[in-house]
Amino acid sequence: MRIGFRTAAVVVVSSVVATTLFFGSLKNGNAQTRTRYLPEYTADGQLLLPKDFHEWVYVGSPLTPNALNDGHAGFPEYHNVYIEPGSYEVYKKTGQFPEGTILFKELQLTLPGENPDGSRTEPSGRGYFPGPFNGADVTVKDSKRFAETNGWGYFNFNHHEPKAPMAKVKAKGECAYCHISSAKKDEVWTQFYPLLDK
Amino acid sequence: MRIGFRTAAVVVVSSVVATTLFFGSLKNGNAQTRTRYLPEYTADGQLLLPKDFHEWVYVGSPLTPNALNDGHAGFPEYHNVYIEPGSYEVYKKTGQFPEGTILFKELQLTLPGENPDGSRTEPSGRGYFPGPFNGADVTVKDSKRFAETNGWGYFNFNHHEPKAPMAKVKAKGECAYCHISSAKKDEVWTQFYPLLDK
Repeated sequence: MRIGFRTAAVVVVSSVVATTLFFGSLKNGNAQTRTRYLPEYTADGQLLLPKDFHEWVYVGSPLTPNALNDGHAGFPEYHNVYIEPGSYEVYKKTGQFPEGTILFKELQLTLPGENPDGSRTEPSGRGYFPGPFNGADVTVKDSKRFAETNGWGYFNFNHHEPKAPMAKVKAKGECAYCHISSAKKDEVWTQFYPLLDK
Repeated sequence: MRIGFRTAAVVVVSSVVATTLFFGSLKNGNAQTRTRYLPEYTADGQLLLPKDFHEWVYVGSPLTPNALNDGHAGFPEYHNVYIEPGSYEVYKKTGQFPEGTILFKELQLTLPGENPDGSRTEPSGRGYFPGPFNGADVTVKDSKRFAETNGWGYFNFNHHEPKAPMAKVKAKGECAYCHISSAKKDEVWTQFYPLLDK
C-alpha cells in the first residue's frame, strides 16, 4: 500500500477535500468525527491508489476460482470489496452513493488446490481458503468526470502484486458496460452485498 | 445486530473499559483517537454480541460450500472474519494479540448454486457469490477468564439468523481443541489472513 517516490513526485491537481463527518449515530452514544477520504488524481487524470482501504467497510467476497474458469478467471480469485467508510455513512442515511464514493475490490488468490475444482481440505471443511493478494480494481463515482460511463470511473491497479501506485480510467467497453447492464443499483453489484442491498 | 429488550435487562458486571488509543500512525499524518471496544459480559458470564462488527477490520473469508461438504458444512459457508480495530492497531505494533482482542467470524450463505459443486455463473465468471448472513462465531482473548482453553474463549451466536444477543462459552472439546492443534499463531488461523500473518 505504500506509494513510492514516483507517485509522491506527481502533482495532485484535483485536491482532496477531506470533509469531516459527524457521527452522531454510533451505538455507544459517543459522537465521533471521521475523515471522509475522497479520490486523488494526478495532473493527467490518473487515480492514485486509495489509502488505507484495508480499514474500510467490507461488504462481500464473490469468488471465481481459476480452476472453475479454465485456469484464468477474469478476476482471480476472491474479490474482496470495500466501501470508503465516510461514503458508506452517507449511503446508510440516504440510500444513494454520494459523489466521490470509492469502492475498492482487492483481488486475492486462493491457497493451492488439492482437487480439480481448486478446493482443498482444512480442519473447517472442504473449500477455498485465502492466499496472497493479487492486485485491485477500483470504481469512483463522479457524475461530471465520468459522464461517458454513466457517472462512475473504472480503474485497474494490476491483477498481480504489487498494486500499481496510479491508474488510468478504463474505456467504457472494458468495465462499465457490464456494470451498466447487470449490476443491481447505480452500477454497483448490490445483489452480492447485503450491507448495501437495502 | 440490534440487541433486544432481554439483553438490555441483564446486568453487565464485567464492565467495559473503553480505552482510547492514540493513532499517530495514520497515513494522512493527522493523529486521531479511536475507542477500543472490549468484550461485554452478562452477570452469569455470557458474552454479549459485539457491537458494530461490520465496521471492524476485515481479514479474510475461508469458504466451505455446503455442496462440497455433504450438504452440511461445519461452518456454512463464507466465514467472513473481522478483528476489532483497536486490538488490530496494537497487533500491528507488537505482533501479539492483546488481552481483550475479539475476532468475529460472520457466517454468510452463498447464493443458490446451479452446479453440483454449488457454484453458479455470473458476469464475472463461475464461482460462489455472497448471499444471506447466517449467524456468527466469536473468539475472545482473556488469559485468566479462559485459562482452561489456553487463553481464548469461544462463542457461537447461532448458525442462522438472527444472531443470538448473547452466548455461553463453549467447552474445550467443541472449538478450542481444533484452534490449539491447527491454527498457526496463538489459536488464530493467521495462515489464512495475510494481514495478520507477519
